[in-house]
Amino acid sequence: MKVNERLQEYALMTEQALEQALHQANTPFDAYNRLVEAMRYSVLGGGKRIRAALCLEFCRLCGGNPVDALPFACAVEMIHAYSLIHDDLPCMDNDDLRRGKPSCHIAYGEAVALLAGDALQACAFKTALNACQVPAEQVVKAVELLAKCCGYEGMCGGQAMDLDAEERPVDHETLAEIHAGKTGMMILAAAQMGCLAASSTKEQLKAAEEYACEVGIIFQMVDDVLDVTATEEELGKPIGSDAQCGKTTYVTLFGVEKTMEYATVHNERAKNALSVFGEEGTFLAEFSDYLLHRKH
Amino acid sequence: MKVNERLQEYALMTEQALEQALHQANTPFDAYNRLVEAMRYSVLGGGKRIRAALCLEFCRLCGGNPVDALPFACAVEMIHAYSLIHDDLPCMDNDDLRRGKPSCHIAYGEAVALLAGDALQACAFKTALNACQVPAEQVVKAVELLAKCCGYEGMCGGQAMDLDAEERPVDHETLAEIHAGKTGMMILAAAQMGCLAASSTKEQLKAAEEYACEVGIIFQMVDDVLDVTATEEELGKPIGSDAQCGKTTYVTLFGVEKTMEYATVHNERAKNALSVFGEEGTFLAEFSDYLLHRKH
Repeated sequence: MKVNERLQEYALMTEQALEQALHQANTPFDAYNRLVEAMRYSVLGGGKRIRAALCLEFCRLCGGNPVDALPFACAVEMIHAYSLIHDDLPCMDNDDLRRGKPSCHIAYGEAVALLAGDALQACAFKTALNACQVPAEQVVKAVELLAKCCGYEGMCGGQAMDLDAEERPVDHETLAEIHAGKTGMMILAAAQMGCLAASSTKEQLKAAEEYACEVGIIFQMVDDVLDVTATEEELGKPIGSDAQCGKTTYVTLFGVEKTMEYATVHNERAKNALSVFGEEGTFLAEFSDYLLHRKH
Repeated sequence: MKVNERLQEYALMTEQALEQALHQANTPFDAYNRLVEAMRYSVLGGGKRIRAALCLEFCRLCGGNPVDALPFACAVEMIHAYSLIHDDLPCMDNDDLRRGKPSCHIAYGEAVALLAGDALQACAFKTALNACQVPAEQVVKAVELLAKCCGYEGMCGGQAMDLDAEERPVDHETLAEIHAGKTGMMILAAAQMGCLAASSTKEQLKAAEEYACEVGIIFQMVDDVLDVTATEEELGKPIGSDAQCGKTTYVTLFGVEKTMEYATVHNERAKNALSVFGEEGTFLAEFSDYLLHRKH
């Protein structure tokens, strides 16, 4: 199966499960219904669902049924969606557009957007804890991991460091730490939660960790390269935005050519991490290639 | 034991557990350390820990060791603290002061305050899931309840309705719904999570629900009364603030006298709900009286 086909299949499964997990509200209370609408506006019908795909595929690789990991995959996507809502707020990146649509706070106002983000985080935990096909001990482990990866030790910590880094140039170590927190930890959570849904071995968990860390770095390096080499049409968003605001990126540190060289090394490492899964690891190997060679 | 003494004992236990759950950070990354500092600034050393006390006491009443419920009590307090940070933000209530100290966003800036709130919510779930003395099945049930009560079906939904209600007068049903969501559901979560920590019976869970709902109403009714009858010194915050901004309260709907009459009826109901616990329910009966008769 081609990498794109399976990605699409996983994205469809996730979309349906998200729709199930967060129904439209029809209460007599408009403000309540509107909050749920803002949550759905931000989490449904958007994105490539890369994190969800990693979660479902690692579950499959560890001998589980991907369907059992859907509550975890949805949770990871909800956390991702909430982080984008809050990122776009005026006190953060102040972005009016998200994937070509008005940002949540443009569509619903700042207060509702703030609450929609907050409620999506809570909804992520509720959804993950409802993984009824997974033994309770594994659910606790998986959701604890999610909480750690999206909190101060992970995503929020990375975002705080990222905001701070806008004001001064940073070194390679700090840049790596920022991205490990801001995006890497949630990719790690997605991969390992998939393993835990299948009651995986420690060896499999370790492989997922290694793969996820490498893939996170590739993703960011290619992102930084595309920001200076792609056209606005290819990317669907303004290019050169990082360079313009004087932000340190892998490209400002190493240049385009060297960054792609490094990304290629990380791609090899990502594929090596999959050896424990044998032939079955093909999709994730191709997925890593796909991230390396993507044009948007 | 006097109600105040046991409240203080529970508050002390909770304070120590919160300090344990959220250590000061000493990484080489200032922005990261500062985020953790903002979280600690908002969650430590503040408040009467009423929610935590309910959680610990219901655990004891159901035959458990209150210490086992500490992770749940901390989680509820962390959620409460995050909601106050976000409530105080300029796009919400725009409050510069909280318990006589500068609000989190005044002390640390808006972006850090937003992230500190987000990270405290995640930390609440991480802490609750680490309740290692409680069987995994009970942990899953308790934390799922927490997620529901603090999300769109609970706290966030109530806040969205509350914001909306500032712009127009509301009827009794809507006002009750706002408060049930905004404060009631987290009081319910605290009480029932305490029960679940002790692997309680269904009857005990039901009693906790009834008691928590009544206590939530009493708390709000007395709050509305104190807003017009207390002095600024007694309350430690400006009085008459609700009335000034034309907000509907129990007092604007029913007047002071009628509101206190209703609160007294709810106090009787709260105490009746405790009958299943027999003599042991004395503290919670006194606690309900204490909420009814408080002067600040």
